Amino acid sequence: VIYVITPSKPGPTQKADLTRLASTLRQVPALHWIVIEDQPAPTALVAALLERSGMRNSYSHLAVQSEAVSAGPRYKTARGVEQRNLGIAHLRELVSAAAAAAAQLKRSPQRPGDQQGESETSAPEGVVYFADDDNTYDLRVFEEMRFTQHVSVWPVGIVGGLMYEGPVVDLATRRVVRWHVGWKKQRQFPIDMAGFAIHARNFINTPGELLSRSSPRGYLESHLLARFVRQLAQLEPKADLCSTILVWHTRTEAPDLSQEEAHPSDPLVEV
Amino acid sequence: VIYVITPSKPGPTQKADLTRLASTLRQVPALHWIVIEDQPAPTALVAALLERSGMRNSYSHLAVQSEAVSAGPRYKTARGVEQRNLGIAHLRELVSAAAAAAAQLKRSPQRPGDQQGESETSAPEGVVYFADDDNTYDLRVFEEMRFTQHVSVWPVGIVGGLMYEGPVVDLATRRVVRWHVGWKKQRQFPIDMAGFAIHARNFINTPGELLSRSSPRGYLESHLLARFVRQLAQLEPKADLCSTILVWHTRTEAPDLSQEEAHPSDPLVEV
Ligand SMILES: O=c1ccn([C@@H]2O[C@H](COP(=O)(O)OP(=O)(O)O)[C@@H](O)[C@H]2O)c(=O)[nH]1
Ligand SMILES: O=c1ccn([C@@H]2O[C@H](COP(=O)(O)OP(=O)(O)O)[C@@H](O)[C@H]2O)c(=O)[nH]1
Ligand SMILES: [Mn+2]
Ligand SMILES: [Mn+2]
Repeated sequence: VIYVITPSKPGPTQKADLTRLASTLRQVPALHWIVIEDQPAPTALVAALLERSGMRNSYSHLAVQSEAVSAGPRYKTARGVEQRNLGIAHLRELVSAAAAAAAQLKRSPQRPGDQQGESETSAPEGVVYFADDDNTYDLRVFEEMRFTQHVSVWPVGIVGGLMYEGPVVDLATRRVVRWHVGWKKQRQFPIDMAGFAIHARNFINTPGELLSRSSPRGYLESHLLARFVRQLAQLEPKADLCSTILVWHTRTEAPDLSQEEAHPSDPLVEV
Repeated sequence: VIYVITPSKPGPTQKADLTRLASTLRQVPALHWIVIEDQPAPTALVAALLERSGMRNSYSHLAVQSEAVSAGPRYKTARGVEQRNLGIAHLRELVSAAAAAAAQLKRSPQRPGDQQGESETSAPEGVVYFADDDNTYDLRVFEEMRFTQHVSVWPVGIVGGLMYEGPVVDLATRRVVRWHVGWKKQRQFPIDMAGFAIHARNFINTPGELLSRSSPRGYLESHLLARFVRQLAQLEPKADLCSTILVWHTRTEAPDLSQEEAHPSDPLVEV
Protein backbone atom coordinates (compact mmCIF):
# COMPACT_ATOMS: atom_id res chain seq x y z
CA VAL A 1 0.00 0.00 0.00
CA ILE A 2 1.14 3.54 -0.75
CA TYR A 3 0.17 5.98 2.02
CA VAL A 4 -0.06 9.47 0.55
CA ILE A 5 0.02 12.31 3.10
CA THR A 6 -1.39 15.62 1.84
CA PRO A 7 -1.64 18.78 3.94
CA SER A 8 -4.24 21.16 2.55
CA LYS A 9 -4.66 24.82 3.29
CA PRO A 10 -8.00 26.59 2.97
CA GLY A 11 -8.24 29.14 0.18
CA PRO A 12 -9.96 29.95 -3.09
CA THR A 13 -8.07 27.31 -5.10
CA GLN A 14 -8.18 24.52 -2.50
CA LYS A 15 -11.13 22.73 -4.06
CA ALA A 16 -9.67 22.97 -7.55
CA ASP A 17 -6.29 21.69 -6.38
CA LEU A 18 -7.77 18.76 -4.46
CA THR A 19 -10.12 17.97 -7.37
CA ARG A 20 -7.30 17.43 -9.80
CA LEU A 21 -5.14 15.62 -7.27
CA ALA A 22 -8.05 13.27 -6.46
CA SER A 23 -8.58 12.73 -10.19
CA THR A 24 -5.00 11.43 -10.40
CA LEU A 25 -4.88 9.45 -7.14
CA ARG A 26 -8.16 7.62 -7.79
CA GLN A 27 -6.41 5.87 -10.68
CA VAL A 28 -3.62 4.41 -8.52
CA PRO A 29 -4.28 0.91 -7.14
CA ALA A 30 -3.56 0.09 -3.48
CA LEU A 31 -3.27 3.68 -2.35
CA HIS A 32 -4.56 5.19 0.88
CA TRP A 33 -4.88 8.98 0.85
CA ILE A 34 -4.47 10.83 4.16
CA VAL A 35 -5.68 14.42 3.78
CA ILE A 36 -5.02 16.78 6.68
CA GLU A 37 -6.66 20.16 6.50
CA ASP A 38 -5.08 23.24 8.02
CA GLN A 39 -8.27 23.91 10.01
CA PRO A 40 -9.55 23.43 13.55
CA ALA A 41 -11.82 20.63 12.26
CA PRO A 42 -12.44 18.79 8.99
CA THR A 43 -14.63 20.82 6.63
CA ALA A 44 -17.77 19.73 4.80
CA LEU A 45 -16.21 20.91 1.51
CA VAL A 46 -13.30 18.47 1.72
CA ALA A 47 -15.44 15.69 3.23
CA ALA A 48 -17.85 15.84 0.27
CA LEU A 49 -15.01 16.06 -2.23
CA LEU A 50 -13.36 12.93 -0.80
CA GLU A 51 -16.70 11.14 -0.68
CA ARG A 52 -17.28 11.85 -4.38
CA SER A 53 -13.67 11.30 -5.39
CA GLY A 54 -13.91 7.63 -6.27
CA MET A 55 -11.23 6.83 -3.66
CA ARG A 56 -13.94 4.74 -1.95
CA ASN A 57 -12.83 3.99 1.61
CA SER A 58 -9.19 4.39 0.80
CA TYR A 59 -8.77 7.74 2.47
CA SER A 60 -8.66 9.43 5.87
CA HIS A 61 -9.80 12.97 6.51
CA LEU A 62 -8.15 14.81 9.41
CA ALA A 63 -7.53 18.40 10.44
CA VAL A 64 -5.20 20.43 12.62
CA GLN A 65 -4.65 24.15 12.55
CA SER A 66 -1.12 25.46 12.06
CA GLU A 67 0.41 27.16 15.07
CA ALA A 68 0.71 30.90 14.80
CA VAL A 69 4.16 31.81 13.60
CA SER A 70 5.74 33.83 16.38
CA ALA A 71 9.01 35.07 14.93
CA GLY A 72 10.19 35.91 11.44
CA PRO A 73 8.33 36.34 8.19
CA ARG A 74 5.87 33.63 7.08
CA TYR A 75 7.73 32.82 3.87
CA LYS A 76 10.80 31.76 5.85
CA THR A 77 9.00 29.10 7.88
CA ALA A 78 8.18 25.58 6.77
CA ARG A 79 4.59 24.86 5.73
CA GLY A 80 2.32 21.96 6.56
CA VAL A 81 4.36 20.85 9.62
CA GLU A 82 1.55 20.14 12.10
CA GLN A 83 -0.55 18.61 9.32
CA ARG A 84 2.13 16.16 8.21
CA ASN A 85 2.91 15.25 11.83
CA LEU A 86 -0.73 14.42 12.41
CA GLY A 87 -0.75 12.47 9.15
CA ILE A 88 2.26 10.46 10.37
CA ALA A 89 0.55 9.71 13.72
CA HIS A 90 -2.50 8.47 11.83
CA LEU A 91 -0.34 6.48 9.44
CA ARG A 92 1.25 4.65 12.40
CA GLU A 93 -2.22 3.60 13.55
CA LEU A 94 -3.20 2.41 10.08
CA VAL A 95 0.04 0.46 9.60
CA SER A 96 -0.09 -1.12 13.07
CA ALA A 97 -3.71 -2.12 12.58
CA ALA A 98 -2.88 -3.65 9.19
CA ALA A 99 0.09 -5.55 10.67
CA ALA A 100 -2.07 -6.85 13.54
CA ALA A 101 -4.74 -7.95 11.07
CA ALA A 102 -2.12 -9.75 8.97
CA ALA A 103 -0.79 -11.55 12.08
CA GLN A 104 -4.35 -12.51 13.05
CA LEU A 105 -4.84 -14.00 9.61
CA LYS A 106 -1.63 -16.00 9.97
CA ARG A 107 -2.72 -17.44 13.33
CA SER A 108 -6.24 -18.25 12.15
CA PRO A 109 -6.81 -22.04 12.24
CA GLN A 110 -9.03 -21.81 9.12
CA ARG A 111 -5.94 -21.04 7.10
CA PRO A 112 -3.93 -24.06 6.03
CA GLY A 113 -0.20 -24.21 6.78
CA ASP A 114 -0.32 -21.57 9.52
CA GLN A 115 2.16 -21.45 12.40
CA GLN A 116 0.11 -20.83 15.53
CA GLY A 117 1.12 -18.22 18.09
CA GLU A 118 4.21 -17.33 16.13
CA SER A 119 4.15 -13.54 16.57
CA GLU A 120 1.85 -10.85 17.86
CA THR A 121 2.13 -8.65 14.75
CA SER A 122 3.48 -9.00 11.23
CA ALA A 123 6.15 -6.71 9.84
CA PRO A 124 4.83 -3.27 8.89
CA GLU A 125 4.04 -3.02 5.19
CA GLY A 126 3.67 0.02 2.94
CA VAL A 127 5.40 3.05 1.54
CA VAL A 128 4.85 6.66 2.61
CA TYR A 129 4.80 9.64 0.26
CA PHE A 130 4.19 13.32 1.03
CA ALA A 131 2.14 14.82 -1.80
CA ASP A 132 1.35 18.53 -1.67
CA ASP A 133 -2.01 19.49 -3.12
CA ASP A 134 -0.78 21.73 -5.93
CA ASN A 135 2.03 19.59 -7.36
CA THR A 136 1.66 17.61 -10.59
CA TYR A 137 2.07 13.83 -10.53
CA ASP A 138 2.65 11.50 -13.47
CA LEU A 139 0.86 8.24 -12.65
CA ARG A 140 4.13 6.38 -13.17
CA VAL A 141 5.72 7.95 -10.09
CA PHE A 142 3.50 5.79 -7.88
CA GLU A 143 4.64 2.58 -9.56
CA GLU A 144 8.24 3.70 -9.05
CA MET A 145 7.86 4.38 -5.32
CA ARG A 146 5.75 1.27 -4.65
CA PHE A 147 8.85 -0.95 -4.46
CA THR A 148 10.80 1.20 -1.98
CA GLN A 149 12.83 -0.94 0.43
CA HIS A 150 14.03 1.84 2.70
CA VAL A 151 14.16 5.34 1.17
CA SER A 152 13.80 5.98 -2.56
CA VAL A 153 14.53 9.21 -4.42
CA TRP A 154 13.96 10.81 -7.83
CA PRO A 155 14.11 14.29 -9.39
CA VAL A 156 11.41 16.97 -9.11
CA GLY A 157 10.61 19.39 -11.92
CA ILE A 158 10.36 23.19 -11.53
CA VAL A 159 11.66 23.72 -8.02
CA GLY A 160 14.41 25.52 -6.19
CA GLY A 161 14.93 28.06 -8.96
CA LEU A 162 15.76 25.30 -11.46
CA MET A 163 14.06 23.37 -14.24
CA TYR A 164 14.55 20.37 -11.97
CA GLU A 165 16.34 19.45 -8.77
CA GLY A 166 17.46 15.91 -8.12
CA PRO A 167 19.90 13.21 -7.16
CA VAL A 168 22.82 12.57 -9.53
CA VAL A 169 23.47 8.86 -9.99
CA ASP A 170 26.77 7.25 -10.90
CA LEU A 171 25.90 4.96 -13.79
CA ALA A 172 28.61 2.41 -12.93
CA THR A 173 27.59 1.86 -9.30
CA ARG A 174 23.94 2.90 -9.75
CA ARG A 175 24.22 4.89 -6.52
CA VAL A 176 23.37 8.50 -5.72
CA VAL A 177 26.65 10.39 -5.52
CA ARG A 178 25.60 14.06 -5.34
CA TRP A 179 22.75 16.49 -6.03
CA HIS A 180 21.78 18.82 -8.82
CA VAL A 181 20.59 21.79 -6.76
CA GLY A 182 20.95 25.55 -6.60
CA TRP A 183 18.95 26.79 -3.61
CA LYS A 184 20.26 26.08 -0.07
CA LYS A 185 22.94 23.71 -1.32
CA GLN A 186 24.39 23.30 2.16
CA ARG A 187 21.48 21.03 3.18
CA GLN A 188 22.49 17.43 3.89
CA PHE A 189 19.59 16.13 1.75
CA PRO A 190 18.70 19.00 -0.57
CA ILE A 191 15.50 17.48 -1.94
CA ASP A 192 11.86 18.54 -2.12
CA MET A 193 9.06 16.65 -0.30
CA ALA A 194 7.84 15.42 -3.70
CA GLY A 195 11.14 13.68 -4.48
CA PHE A 196 11.26 10.75 -2.05
CA ALA A 197 9.29 7.91 -0.47
CA ILE A 198 10.01 6.09 2.79
CA HIS A 199 9.13 2.55 3.82
CA ALA A 200 6.39 2.59 6.48
CA ARG A 201 8.54 0.50 8.85
CA ASN A 202 10.67 3.59 9.54
CA PHE A 203 7.74 5.54 10.92
CA ILE A 204 6.92 2.68 13.31
CA ASN A 205 10.49 2.23 14.48
CA THR A 206 11.09 5.95 15.02
CA PRO A 207 8.41 7.38 17.30
CA GLY A 208 7.53 10.99 18.07
CA GLU A 209 7.01 14.07 15.93
CA LEU A 210 9.32 13.77 12.97
CA LEU A 211 8.84 17.27 11.58
CA SER A 212 9.59 20.40 13.54
CA ARG A 213 8.07 23.87 13.36
CA SER A 214 11.58 25.22 14.00
CA SER A 215 13.04 23.80 10.78
CA PRO A 216 13.68 26.72 8.42
CA ARG A 217 11.96 26.62 5.04
CA GLY A 218 13.58 23.94 2.87
CA TYR A 219 15.01 21.98 5.81
CA LEU A 220 11.98 19.82 6.71
CA GLU A 221 12.91 17.21 4.12
CA SER A 222 16.59 17.17 5.04
CA HIS A 223 15.90 16.83 8.76
CA LEU A 224 13.38 14.04 8.14
CA LEU A 225 15.65 12.04 5.85
CA ALA A 226 18.59 12.45 8.27
CA ARG A 227 16.60 10.34 10.77
CA PHE A 228 16.67 7.35 8.44
CA VAL A 229 19.64 7.77 6.11
CA ARG A 230 23.35 8.03 6.93
CA GLN A 231 24.98 7.79 3.54
CA LEU A 232 23.94 8.69 0.02
CA ALA A 233 24.61 5.11 -1.03
CA GLN A 234 21.60 3.97 1.04
CA LEU A 235 19.21 5.88 -1.23
CA GLU A 236 17.35 3.89 -3.89
CA PRO A 237 17.34 5.86 -7.15
CA LYS A 238 14.06 5.58 -9.10
CA ALA A 239 12.78 7.01 -12.40
CA ASP A 240 15.44 5.59 -14.73
CA LEU A 241 18.28 6.26 -12.30
CA CYS A 242 16.88 9.73 -11.61
CA SER A 243 16.92 10.82 -15.25
CA THR A 244 13.15 11.10 -15.83
CA ILE A 245 10.88 13.79 -14.37
CA LEU A 246 7.66 12.24 -13.03
CA VAL A 247 6.62 14.96 -10.58
CA TRP A 248 6.56 18.75 -10.81
CA HIS A 249 6.48 21.29 -8.01
CA THR A 250 3.87 23.37 -9.80
CA ARG A 251 2.10 26.11 -7.87
CA THR A 252 -1.38 27.42 -8.51
CA GLU A 253 -1.43 31.15 -9.08
CA ALA A 254 -3.14 33.17 -6.35
CA PRO A 255 -6.43 34.31 -7.86
CA ASP A 256 -7.43 37.87 -8.61
CA LEU A 257 -10.64 38.51 -6.66
CA SER A 258 -10.71 42.25 -7.22
CA GLN A 259 -14.29 42.29 -8.58
CA GLU A 260 -15.79 40.63 -5.50
CA GLU A 261 -16.36 43.89 -3.68
CA ALA A 262 -18.42 45.46 -6.48
CA HIS A 263 -20.05 42.20 -7.63
CA PRO A 264 -20.15 39.78 -4.71
CA SER A 265 -20.51 36.11 -5.61
CA ASP A 266 -23.23 34.05 -3.95
CA PRO A 267 -21.55 32.65 -0.81
CA LEU A 268 -23.82 29.59 -1.02
CA VAL A 269 -22.09 28.52 -4.23
CA GLU A 270 -19.14 26.36 -3.21
CA VAL A 271 -16.05 27.12 -5.33
CA VAL B 1 -18.40 12.02 -28.79
CA ILE B 2 -16.99 15.01 -26.97
CA TYR B 3 -14.36 16.85 -29.01
CA VAL B 4 -12.02 18.70 -26.66
CA ILE B 5 -9.90 21.43 -28.28
CA THR B 6 -6.79 22.43 -26.30
CA PRO B 7 -4.28 25.05 -27.45
CA SER B 8 -0.92 24.57 -25.73
CA LYS B 9 1.90 27.02 -25.47
CA PRO B 10 5.53 25.93 -25.03
CA GLY B 11 7.10 26.75 -21.68
CA PRO B 12 8.53 25.25 -18.52
CA THR B 13 5.16 24.11 -17.13
CA GLN B 14 3.67 22.84 -20.42
CA LYS B 15 4.49 19.19 -19.77
CA ALA B 16 3.18 19.35 -16.20
CA ASP B 17 -0.04 21.06 -17.32
CA LEU B 18 -0.67 18.58 -20.13
CA THR B 19 0.20 15.65 -17.85
CA ARG B 20 -2.52 16.47 -15.36
CA LEU B 21 -5.04 17.36 -18.04
CA ALA B 22 -4.36 14.03 -19.80
CA SER B 23 -4.74 12.26 -16.46
CA THR B 24 -8.27 13.69 -16.23
CA LEU B 25 -9.31 13.31 -19.89
CA ARG B 26 -8.18 9.67 -20.14
CA GLN B 27 -10.95 8.82 -17.68
CA VAL B 28 -13.75 10.27 -19.84
CA PRO B 29 -15.44 7.81 -22.22
CA ALA B 30 -16.13 8.74 -25.85
CA LEU B 31 -13.81 11.75 -25.89
CA HIS B 32 -11.50 12.84 -28.68
CA TRP B 33 -8.74 15.23 -27.62
CA ILE B 34 -7.44 17.72 -30.20
CA VAL B 35 -4.20 19.29 -28.98
CA ILE B 36 -2.81 22.18 -31.01
CA GLU B 37 0.64 23.37 -30.05
CA ASP B 38 1.70 26.99 -30.46
CA GLN B 39 4.70 25.89 -32.50
CA PRO B 40 5.72 25.71 -36.17
CA ALA B 41 5.38 21.89 -35.99
CA PRO B 42 4.27 19.28 -33.45
CA THR B 43 7.00 18.55 -30.88
CA ALA B 44 8.38 15.20 -29.77
CA LEU B 45 7.64 16.14 -26.15
CA VAL B 46 3.89 16.45 -26.72
CA ALA B 47 3.79 13.52 -29.16
CA ALA B 48 5.34 11.19 -26.57
CA LEU B 49 3.11 12.53 -23.81
CA LEU B 50 -0.03 11.86 -25.88
CA GLU B 51 1.26 8.43 -26.86
CA ARG B 52 1.76 7.49 -23.20
CA SER B 53 -1.39 9.23 -22.00
CA GLY B 54 -3.74 6.29 -22.22
CA MET B 55 -5.96 8.25 -24.63
CA ARG B 56 -5.18 5.47 -27.13
CA ASN B 57 -6.08 6.68 -30.62
CA SER B 58 -8.61 9.19 -29.33
CA TYR B 59 -6.52 12.25 -29.95
CA SER B 60 -5.11 14.45 -32.69
CA HIS B 61 -1.83 16.31 -32.45
CA LEU B 62 -1.49 19.49 -34.49
CA ALA B 63 0.54 22.68 -34.41
CA VAL B 64 0.41 26.25 -35.65
CA GLN B 65 2.48 29.17 -34.47
CA SER B 66 0.67 32.28 -33.24
CA GLU B 67 0.99 35.32 -35.44
CA ALA B 68 3.25 38.04 -34.10
CA VAL B 69 1.15 40.62 -32.32
CA SER B 70 1.65 43.85 -34.22
CA ALA B 71 -0.11 46.46 -32.12
CA GLY B 72 -0.82 46.85 -28.44
CA PRO B 73 0.48 45.01 -25.40
CA ARG B 74 0.39 41.18 -25.39
CA TYR B 75 -1.89 40.95 -22.34
CA LYS B 76 -4.64 42.82 -24.20
CA THR B 77 -4.85 40.37 -27.07
CA ALA B 78 -6.69 37.07 -27.10
CA ARG B 79 -4.65 33.88 -26.74
CA GLY B 80 -4.78 30.61 -28.62
CA VAL B 81 -6.70 32.05 -31.59
CA GLU B 82 -4.82 30.38 -34.47
CA GLN B 83 -4.58 27.15 -32.50
CA ARG B 84 -8.32 26.94 -31.82
CA ASN B 85 -9.13 27.84 -35.44
CA LEU B 86 -6.91 25.01 -36.64
CA GLY B 87 -8.57 22.74 -34.09
CA ILE B 88 -11.98 23.68 -35.48
CA ALA B 89 -10.85 22.99 -39.06
CA HIS B 90 -9.63 19.56 -37.96
CA LEU B 91 -12.82 18.95 -36.01
CA ARG B 92 -14.88 19.57 -39.14
CA GLU B 93 -12.91 16.87 -40.94
CA LEU B 94 -13.36 14.41 -38.08
CA VAL B 95 -17.08 15.09 -37.81
CA SER B 96 -17.66 14.90 -41.58
CA ALA B 97 -15.71 11.65 -41.78
CA ALA B 98 -17.72 10.19 -38.89
CA ALA B 99 -21.02 11.26 -40.51
CA ALA B 100 -19.98 9.73 -43.84
CA ALA B 101 -19.01 6.49 -42.07
CA ALA B 102 -22.38 6.41 -40.30
CA ALA B 103 -24.22 6.96 -43.59
CA GLN B 104 -22.16 4.19 -45.17
CA LEU B 105 -23.17 1.86 -42.34
CA LYS B 106 -26.83 2.76 -42.88
CA ARG B 107 -26.64 1.99 -46.62
CA SER B 108 -24.78 -1.27 -46.08
CA PRO B 109 -26.95 -4.23 -47.22
CA GLN B 110 -25.59 -6.32 -44.31
CA ARG B 111 -27.55 -4.19 -41.94
CA PRO B 112 -31.27 -5.07 -41.66
CA GLY B 113 -33.92 -2.39 -42.05
CA ASP B 114 -31.68 0.02 -43.96
CA GLN B 115 -33.04 2.56 -46.41
CA GLN B 116 -30.75 2.44 -49.40
CA GLY B 117 -29.38 5.59 -51.00
CA GLU B 118 -31.34 7.78 -48.64
CA SER B 119 -28.66 10.36 -47.95
CA GLU B 120 -24.99 10.88 -48.66
CA THR B 121 -24.10 11.66 -45.05
CA SER B 122 -25.72 11.31 -41.64
CA ALA B 123 -26.34 14.28 -39.37
CA PRO B 124 -23.16 15.52 -37.64
CA GLU B 125 -22.83 14.10 -34.14
CA GLY B 126 -20.81 15.31 -31.18
CA VAL B 127 -20.20 18.17 -28.80
CA VAL B 128 -17.29 20.60 -28.89
CA TYR B 129 -15.52 21.96 -25.79
CA PHE B 130 -12.54 24.32 -25.56
CA ALA B 131 -10.33 23.20 -22.67
CA ASP B 132 -7.27 25.27 -21.84
CA ASP B 133 -4.30 23.30 -20.56
CA ASP B 134 -4.03 24.87 -17.10
CA ASN B 135 -7.70 24.85 -16.05
CA THR B 136 -9.10 22.34 -13.55
CA TYR B 137 -11.91 20.00 -14.64
CA ASP B 138 -14.22 17.95 -12.43
CA LEU B 139 -14.97 14.74 -14.33
CA ARG B 140 -18.69 15.47 -13.99
CA VAL B 141 -18.48 18.48 -16.32
CA PHE B 142 -18.02 16.13 -19.27
CA GLU B 143 -21.20 14.21 -18.44
CA GLU B 144 -23.05 17.52 -18.22
CA MET B 145 -21.91 18.77 -21.62
CA ARG B 146 -22.33 15.41 -23.36
CA PHE B 147 -26.08 16.00 -23.82
CA THR B 148 -25.82 19.47 -25.37
CA GLN B 149 -28.48 20.03 -28.03
CA HIS B 150 -27.29 23.39 -29.30
CA VAL B 151 -25.21 25.46 -26.84
CA SER B 152 -24.92 24.61 -23.14
CA VAL B 153 -23.52 26.82 -20.39
CA TRP B 154 -22.40 26.58 -16.74
CA PRO B 155 -20.38 28.66 -14.25
CA VAL B 156 -16.58 28.79 -14.07
CA GLY B 157 -14.66 29.13 -10.79
CA ILE B 158 -11.92 31.70 -10.14
CA VAL B 159 -12.13 33.91 -13.17
CA GLY B 160 -12.77 37.53 -14.12
CA GLY B 161 -11.79 38.85 -10.70
CA LEU B 162 -14.52 36.78 -9.00
CA MET B 163 -14.85 33.53 -7.08
CA TYR B 164 -16.95 32.41 -10.03
CA GLU B 165 -18.53 33.87 -13.16
CA GLY B 166 -21.63 32.35 -14.63
CA PRO B 167 -25.13 32.38 -16.04
CA VAL B 168 -27.96 33.22 -13.65
CA VAL B 169 -30.98 30.95 -14.18
CA ASP B 170 -34.58 31.76 -13.40
CA LEU B 171 -35.78 28.80 -11.39
CA ALA B 172 -39.38 29.09 -12.62
CA THR B 173 -38.60 29.04 -16.34
CA ARG B 174 -35.24 27.21 -16.02
CA ARG B 175 -33.79 29.70 -18.51
CA VAL B 176 -30.67 31.85 -18.37
CA VAL B 177 -31.81 35.41 -17.66
CA ARG B 178 -28.58 37.27 -16.91
CA TRP B 179 -24.93 36.86 -15.90
CA HIS B 180 -22.97 37.04 -12.67
CA VAL B 181 -19.90 38.89 -13.93
CA GLY B 182 -17.64 41.78 -12.98
CA TRP B 183 -15.01 42.14 -15.71
CA LYS B 184 -16.07 43.51 -19.13
CA LYS B 185 -19.76 43.30 -18.30
CA GLN B 186 -20.72 44.95 -21.56
CA ARG B 187 -19.97 41.76 -23.52
CA GLN B 188 -23.01 40.13 -25.10
CA PHE B 189 -22.00 36.70 -23.74
CA PRO B 190 -19.68 37.43 -20.82
CA ILE B 191 -18.47 33.87 -20.30
CA ASP B 192 -15.09 32.14 -20.23
CA MET B 193 -14.08 29.50 -22.81
CA ALA B 194 -14.36 26.86 -20.06
CA GLY B 195 -18.05 27.63 -19.44
CA PHE B 196 -19.80 26.37 -22.56
CA ALA B 197 -20.06 23.55 -25.09
CA ILE B 198 -21.45 23.67 -28.62
CA HIS B 199 -23.05 20.95 -30.71
CA ALA B 200 -20.70 19.89 -33.52
CA ARG B 201 -23.40 20.55 -36.14
CA ASN B 202 -22.87 24.29 -35.68
CA PHE B 203 -19.25 24.08 -36.78
CA ILE B 204 -20.28 22.23 -39.95
CA ASN B 205 -23.09 24.63 -40.77
CA THR B 206 -20.98 27.75 -40.18
CA PRO B 207 -17.80 27.61 -42.26
CA GLY B 208 -14.68 29.72 -42.06
CA GLU B 209 -12.48 30.91 -39.23
CA LEU B 210 -14.71 31.41 -36.22
CA LEU B 211 -12.17 33.11 -33.97
CA SER B 212 -10.43 36.33 -34.88
CA ARG B 213 -7.04 37.65 -33.88
CA SER B 214 -8.65 41.09 -33.73
CA SER B 215 -11.03 40.18 -30.89
CA PRO B 216 -9.83 41.97 -27.76
CA ARG B 217 -9.00 39.79 -24.75
CA GLY B 218 -12.22 38.41 -23.27
CA TYR B 219 -14.24 38.82 -26.47
CA LEU B 220 -13.35 35.57 -28.27
CA GLU B 221 -16.06 33.67 -26.44
CA SER B 222 -18.70 36.34 -26.91
CA HIS B 223 -18.01 36.69 -30.63
CA LEU B 224 -18.08 32.92 -31.11
CA LEU B 225 -21.35 32.42 -29.25
CA ALA B 226 -22.96 35.33 -31.10
CA ARG B 227 -22.62 33.25 -34.30
CA PHE B 228 -24.93 30.58 -32.91
CA VAL B 229 -27.10 32.20 -30.25
CA ARG B 230 -29.57 35.05 -30.55
CA GLN B 231 -31.30 35.04 -27.20
CA LEU B 232 -30.33 33.98 -23.71
CA ALA B 233 -33.32 31.64 -23.64
CA GLN B 234 -31.63 29.44 -26.27
CA LEU B 235 -28.84 28.53 -23.86
CA GLU B 236 -29.10 25.17 -22.07
CA PRO B 237 -28.14 25.59 -18.42
CA LYS B 238 -26.10 22.68 -16.99
CA ALA B 239 -24.57 21.87 -13.58
CA ASP B 240 -27.74 22.02 -11.45
CA LEU B 241 -29.13 25.04 -13.28
CA CYS B 242 -25.71 26.72 -13.12
CA SER B 243 -25.41 26.46 -9.34
CA THR B 244 -22.50 23.99 -9.14
CA ILE B 245 -18.88 24.76 -10.02
CA LEU B 246 -17.39 21.93 -12.10
CA VAL B 247 -14.53 23.79 -13.76
CA TRP B 248 -12.00 26.32 -12.48
CA HIS B 249 -9.93 28.81 -14.45
CA THR B 250 -6.81 28.01 -12.45
CA ARG B 251 -3.48 29.26 -13.70
CA THR B 252 -0.09 27.69 -13.12
CA GLU B 253 2.35 30.08 -11.52
CA ALA B 254 5.26 31.11 -13.75
CA PRO B 255 8.29 29.28 -12.36
CA ASP B 256 11.31 30.87 -10.74
CA LEU B 257 14.32 29.73 -12.78
CA SER B 258 16.80 32.11 -11.20
CA GLN B 259 19.32 29.38 -10.29
CA GLU B 260 19.66 28.10 -13.85
CA GLU B 261 22.47 30.48 -14.74
CA ALA B 262 24.69 29.40 -11.85
CA HIS B 263 23.61 25.74 -11.85
CA PRO B 264 22.39 24.84 -15.33
CA SER B 265 20.12 21.80 -15.55
CA ASP B 266 20.96 19.04 -18.02
CA PRO B 267 19.13 20.07 -21.22
CA LEU B 268 18.75 16.38 -22.12
CA VAL B 269 16.40 15.89 -19.17
CA GLU B 270 12.89 16.65 -20.43
CA VAL B 271 10.89 18.63 -17.86
O1 LIG C 1 -0.13 27.38 6.06
C1 LIG C 1 -0.11 26.40 5.29
C2 LIG C 1 0.56 26.44 4.03
C3 LIG C 1 0.54 25.31 3.23
N1 LIG C 1 -0.12 24.18 3.62
C4 LIG C 1 -0.09 22.98 2.75
O2 LIG C 1 1.23 22.51 2.74
C5 LIG C 1 1.62 22.11 1.42
C6 LIG C 1 2.81 22.95 0.94
O3 LIG C 1 2.39 24.31 0.84
P1 LIG C 1 2.61 25.17 -0.50
O4 LIG C 1 2.12 24.38 -1.68
O5 LIG C 1 2.06 26.52 -0.29
O6 LIG C 1 4.21 25.24 -0.48
P2 LIG C 1 5.23 25.41 -1.68
O7 LIG C 1 4.49 25.27 -3.00
O8 LIG C 1 5.80 26.76 -1.50
O9 LIG C 1 6.22 24.29 -1.47
C7 LIG C 1 0.40 22.24 0.52
O10 LIG C 1 -0.21 20.98 0.36
C8 LIG C 1 -0.48 23.24 1.28
O11 LIG C 1 -1.86 23.03 1.05
C9 LIG C 1 -0.77 24.12 4.86
O12 LIG C 1 -1.36 23.10 5.20
N2 LIG C 1 -0.77 25.24 5.65
O1 LIG D 1 0.57 32.57 -26.86
C1 LIG D 1 -0.18 31.71 -26.40
C2 LIG D 1 -0.80 31.82 -25.14
C3 LIG D 1 -1.62 30.79 -24.70
N1 LIG D 1 -1.85 29.68 -25.46
C4 LIG D 1 -2.75 28.62 -24.97
O2 LIG D 1 -4.04 29.19 -24.93
C5 LIG D 1 -4.76 28.79 -23.77
C6 LIG D 1 -5.12 30.04 -22.94
O3 LIG D 1 -3.93 30.67 -22.51
P1 LIG D 1 -3.67 31.03 -20.96
O4 LIG D 1 -3.95 29.82 -20.11
O5 LIG D 1 -2.32 31.65 -20.84
O6 LIG D 1 -4.79 32.14 -20.77
P2 LIG D 1 -5.57 32.61 -19.48
O7 LIG D 1 -5.27 31.65 -18.34
O8 LIG D 1 -5.07 33.98 -19.20
O9 LIG D 1 -7.01 32.55 -19.88
C7 LIG D 1 -3.86 27.82 -23.00
O10 LIG D 1 -4.28 26.50 -23.27
C8 LIG D 1 -2.47 28.14 -23.54
O11 LIG D 1 -1.60 27.02 -23.52
C9 LIG D 1 -1.27 29.56 -26.71
O12 LIG D 1 -1.48 28.56 -27.39
N2 LIG D 1 -0.44 30.57 -27.15
MN1 LIG E 1 3.05 23.79 -3.48
MN1 LIG F 1 -5.22 29.53 -18.43
